[in-house]
Amino acid sequence: MDITKFVEDSLGQWRSQRSAHHLTFSHFEQVTSTIDIVPLAKDDAEVLDLCKSHEIDPQMVSRPFRMSWEGETDWDADEDEEKTTFKGTTILVPIPDPDNPQAGRLLRGEGYAETIPAIGNYHFTEDGTFVLLTTYESAAAEEKIWFVNPNFRLRVSLIKTSGGTGTLTASFSSEKKLALAQD
Amino acid sequence: MDITKFVEDSLGQWRSQRSAHHLTFSHFEQVTSTIDIVPLAKDDAEVLDLCKSHEIDPQMVSRPFRMSWEGETDWDADEDEEKTTFKGTTILVPIPDPDNPQAGRLLRGEGYAETIPAIGNYHFTEDGTFVLLTTYESAAAEEKIWFVNPNFRLRVSLIKTSGGTGTLTASFSSEKKLALAQD
Repeated sequence: MDITKFVEDSLGQWRSQRSAHHLTFSHFEQVTSTIDIVPLAKDDAEVLDLCKSHEIDPQMVSRPFRMSWEGETDWDADEDEEKTTFKGTTILVPIPDPDNPQAGRLLRGEGYAETIPAIGNYHFTEDGTFVLLTTYESAAAEEKIWFVNPNFRLRVSLIKTSGGTGTLTASFSSEKKLALAQD
Repeated sequence: MDITKFVEDSLGQWRSQRSAHHLTFSHFEQVTSTIDIVPLAKDDAEVLDLCKSHEIDPQMVSRPFRMSWEGETDWDADEDEEKTTFKGTTILVPIPDPDNPQAGRLLRGEGYAETIPAIGNYHFTEDGTFVLLTTYESAAAEEKIWFVNPNFRLRVSLIKTSGGTGTLTASFSSEKKLALAQD
């Protein structure tokens, strides 16, 4: 597995069921959402801007894409059990390691996890699992994504304290592909 | 990682939060349980019986253990939102592959997943994830378990149709160690 195939396999519309375990107080959160992943051109203005802000040569970019999501969660919902809705979008720009096609960096625009741009380090394990590690100012995130079949993928995310010693939230998404990406 | 270390790391009492995604109708199930994993002697009568029933030489056994669980689920709960409680216990008997210490078979007694005994095939990936594949008469199960740290582990389980083409249930457990096993 490499980032080219991984992004290609990810393009399309996904229906996601996500469960978050907030570990400090053993709380369950239930989230359903629709996720759209569409390809971007390497010379897309936002891609070029994000590269520039990280001082990265745009020639190193592979398969940039936009991810958008819209859904609802039972977190912070009122006592009458109404859901809280949310939506967002961000761009993601892979920068493969020139010396190792199974690893690299992933630039993310505003809007994902925290409101500031971030760089994560990814690699693929031998069984094709995508592993992404991102360090934020106040926390660290570890994400694993793997395909069970072309139309079904799983995602496990951990949010840890910035020192990495404690896990605050562990979440699990099962994602079913609904449609291919529109060109 | 090999089965010896994996079982040793697993001994103790665990507090488990589990979310099951029933995919056909996008249902969330929430389960909390306490899991006890205690070592058994290789010449324990139940271990010898299970080996005999599978015609396996008891000399090949490594680190047999008993797993017991007790918890509650919101599945099948009444409209007044009472929880359904459950409990169970089974023995598990690893039979490492003599030619490959990172793989082998896992015998399970009655009580786990289905009420009949089963043999699964396990292996460890390069990053230490335990992967167990079990084929039942009417379904197939795939389980991945990995340690985030010695006191916190994650488990992802898939139940598929016996042909393996469709996934029926995807579940995720986060397990915190409460206490070391009693001798």
